[in-house]
Amino acid sequence: MLTPLVRAITVAAPPPSLGDNTGDLDRLKKTLAPQLAGAMPVVPYQRLGKVAERFRAAGFAGVAIINDMAGTPVLVDFLSQPEVLAGMALDLGTTHLEATLLDLSTGAVLARADLENGQICFGADILTRIHHAAKSEGLAELHRAIIDSVNALATELAGISGLAVAGIRALSVSGNTSMVHFFLNPHHLCREPYIPMVNAPDPCLAGELKLAIHPAAVVWILPSVGSYFGGDLISGVLASGLDQQPETCMLIDVGTNAEVIVGNREWLIACAGAAGPALEGGVARMGMRAGPGAIEHLRIDPGTGEIRYDTIGKGKPKGLCGSGLIDLVAELYLTRQIDIRGKFRPQAAGERLIEGSEGYQFVVVEGTDSADGRPVVLGQVDLDALMRSKAAMYAILTTLTNQVGVAFADLHRIYVAGAFGRHISPRQAIVLGMLPDLPLATYEPVGNSSLAGAQRILLESQARERSLELVRKITYIELNVNQEFMLRFSGSRFIPHTDPALFPSVPFFGGE
Amino acid sequence: MLTPLVRAITVAAPPPSLGDNTGDLDRLKKTLAPQLAGAMPVVPYQRLGKVAERFRAAGFAGVAIINDMAGTPVLVDFLSQPEVLAGMALDLGTTHLEATLLDLSTGAVLARADLENGQICFGADILTRIHHAAKSEGLAELHRAIIDSVNALATELAGISGLAVAGIRALSVSGNTSMVHFFLNPHHLCREPYIPMVNAPDPCLAGELKLAIHPAAVVWILPSVGSYFGGDLISGVLASGLDQQPETCMLIDVGTNAEVIVGNREWLIACAGAAGPALEGGVARMGMRAGPGAIEHLRIDPGTGEIRYDTIGKGKPKGLCGSGLIDLVAELYLTRQIDIRGKFRPQAAGERLIEGSEGYQFVVVEGTDSADGRPVVLGQVDLDALMRSKAAMYAILTTLTNQVGVAFADLHRIYVAGAFGRHISPRQAIVLGMLPDLPLATYEPVGNSSLAGAQRILLESQARERSLELVRKITYIELNVNQEFMLRFSGSRFIPHTDPALFPSVPFFGGE
Repeated sequence: MLTPLVRAITVAAPPPSLGDNTGDLDRLKKTLAPQLAGAMPVVPYQRLGKVAERFRAAGFAGVAIINDMAGTPVLVDFLSQPEVLAGMALDLGTTHLEATLLDLSTGAVLARADLENGQICFGADILTRIHHAAKSEGLAELHRAIIDSVNALATELAGISGLAVAGIRALSVSGNTSMVHFFLNPHHLCREPYIPMVNAPDPCLAGELKLAIHPAAVVWILPSVGSYFGGDLISGVLASGLDQQPETCMLIDVGTNAEVIVGNREWLIACAGAAGPALEGGVARMGMRAGPGAIEHLRIDPGTGEIRYDTIGKGKPKGLCGSGLIDLVAELYLTRQIDIRGKFRPQAAGERLIEGSEGYQFVVVEGTDSADGRPVVLGQVDLDALMRSKAAMYAILTTLTNQVGVAFADLHRIYVAGAFGRHISPRQAIVLGMLPDLPLATYEPVGNSSLAGAQRILLESQARERSLELVRKITYIELNVNQEFMLRFSGSRFIPHTDPALFPSVPFFGGE
Repeated sequence: MLTPLVRAITVAAPPPSLGDNTGDLDRLKKTLAPQLAGAMPVVPYQRLGKVAERFRAAGFAGVAIINDMAGTPVLVDFLSQPEVLAGMALDLGTTHLEATLLDLSTGAVLARADLENGQICFGADILTRIHHAAKSEGLAELHRAIIDSVNALATELAGISGLAVAGIRALSVSGNTSMVHFFLNPHHLCREPYIPMVNAPDPCLAGELKLAIHPAAVVWILPSVGSYFGGDLISGVLASGLDQQPETCMLIDVGTNAEVIVGNREWLIACAGAAGPALEGGVARMGMRAGPGAIEHLRIDPGTGEIRYDTIGKGKPKGLCGSGLIDLVAELYLTRQIDIRGKFRPQAAGERLIEGSEGYQFVVVEGTDSADGRPVVLGQVDLDALMRSKAAMYAILTTLTNQVGVAFADLHRIYVAGAFGRHISPRQAIVLGMLPDLPLATYEPVGNSSLAGAQRILLESQARERSLELVRKITYIELNVNQEFMLRFSGSRFIPHTDPALFPSVPFFGGE
């Protein structure tokens, strides 16, 4: 039984008469109340005339459209005939927006689409955009850009499913705290000491945000725990069910930032890799999104050095997505073309290694075999960035588990989410020392859990309640001021680790 | 203990720190909740940035402004220092707007003002305006005109009390059903069979109505029972306390329409004089508002025929207000200058009676003694209109009491409200056969109870709850289709009545 964010309720009100001269809207509300657990729905001023007009035009019988606004039923429209009630689930990513359109009465996916975040012209990373926001018109420009992107994506989703964009009657938004603030267009983003303006904004109507979807569509934004633990992570918890598990589990989300949460149905502790701009750099310089032409998986023949790879879409390669990058570096280590510090070993790498102005570059695919004639390469600079990323990742995991006194081996399940980890091979990440050396069955990829959580918000009132409960339940640890984290970060900058005993399954070539 | 529509709550939130990185608004809401019976206030999207900005600027301590929106606490502003929290109570009359400005923390009246309804240029009576509303831009014009009038009145109130108009943070509106619909600017006003669009509109923010008061001011509109029993009457019930009386009482409101409600704390039955355009005509043709220059009370010396009168403000007379008109006609009857049918008796009236193109006119005040040089007169046409009015009034009262099986003598109290009845002398109204022949102590004038009720709405949550409860509790009888009413109307067209036994205290001159 779905309990969606917006519901269609079929009603037939007794028609007015001289003996029953109740006002039109009051008549409708009174007829609806028994189907709303006795609650009288509220009609917002901006919908007053429309609802009354349509209720009367429909002959006092038809379909009432009820938004769930923080538990209050809000009557926003009336249709003479049932229509597909579509809701858009949105992962509001820093780099990309991903969305699905759901039929809210069945939960069926009507369309999927994604789009580059239109704010990228103001800065590829969030910090650049936050600086831009401080300029006089900066915040308004960033807000306008993200609203435009959401509108473009909504229009695409509607087109795919043969609906008008104004036929989208609900929107759930999952994003990091900065993206959510850009979306809301607040007075300020985040102030010292790293305090966001709002964690849990109350739901509003799409018209207030000048969205292209139905002006009375309810907009529900996933709450955040803090500046570095956003609604996208709460969404991930919802999607993975971490907060409902009897055993202690972990959720790792490696996107433009690295966020981790560990716990069970009793307690939840989280931290985020604000120390991980290295992870961002690693992705931004040579990576590409997991889309057509991205090398997704890769193997190096230990005997011949031949590189075999799979690209998404099976076409010629354009670059490396997150999983391809991790595969490549792990294989370079296993074939000893890089050392435990992540430095190229020219004598082993051979002719694939060329020396450029920025140091060594390893040619993964020659320009003659690539999609655009340019070789796919991995530079030493990129490799260094990945080493910092993987070190930050492992340091976050060890710091967090240490804080709560849980050993990695005690973790029943590790959910791996996010763009970077979408197609990740846990085995290769273990080889790099990025993820702990646990049985592979411990790892469970959960895809874009930010989007999956947003979908649940659209469909289940229990998910909406859980999300707000999670804000209260999650204890957040700030790593930026954590001495232990910095020490553990240093120790993690070898492959797999300065303490190879932590990675018994990984060959250690530290003796050379 | 006042429970006003908007409250100022003094709070000091724990300042944010690295160890407590709750978002600004969430911090404020959490701190407020214990002072709101544990309820988390909602922040509407349009106030999000402002509230957060001011809360931070105030150093996380100051005064939160909380609207009561249908039971939900809505956080709309934050002040660093306490301010006078002013609320405007408005009687939205067809002819005139009357308003008071109250200090919501003490209930003290800061200012009073009134203004002619700016819609009068579209028609003096409501029916003409309803016809105008049917034209393409008609409804928008009428809406604009009433909003402009309310804004002008708010500006005047603010000026008198030395506040900025945007310092008005709440507005309660009491008006008849048509006026409330014009104010709301709905899609339609009232449709067959006399069904309003809405009885009880949910509260909204002033900015949505483009009012000049604070954009986040809560606008609370008194609900109506039907097209002919508006919020102004509900307001009257609140002000008189009719719904809380152990004994059966009656409330009579004679404004542009005649509405009556009878009952006690157990039951309430109402009807309205839609049959009473005569009452409107009576007022409109020769009457004037109870303002400076209006003859308020009048006596005719039975010996000399000399007319003595009091005017409001003690200046020269301009016309007759409702009470003056009733006094005049009663005295004309008692001095036998008119007969039981309300027709002038030329032999008795003497030289004060002149014959014009529209029949007889009785000169109450010569032009030489009047304020504007024009005589104050009562024409036979006006007298006929008053006769219809008084007949309608008495017919309404008898029909209603008969429906519920209550004799007039059983009424513990009769509250007389409204513009027409404001300064009314019940004795003279009894002489005319307009009000039942009961001990004068039964009658209690309640002044502008529409405004008085609106004031209670501003100050007491219990009054707001009562007003909504009243909509459910009041049974409304439609007189337009009532045969009994029409019969009783005919019987009431003599002075005091065709059955003089009903008025034992009034001399009957029917034998001539």
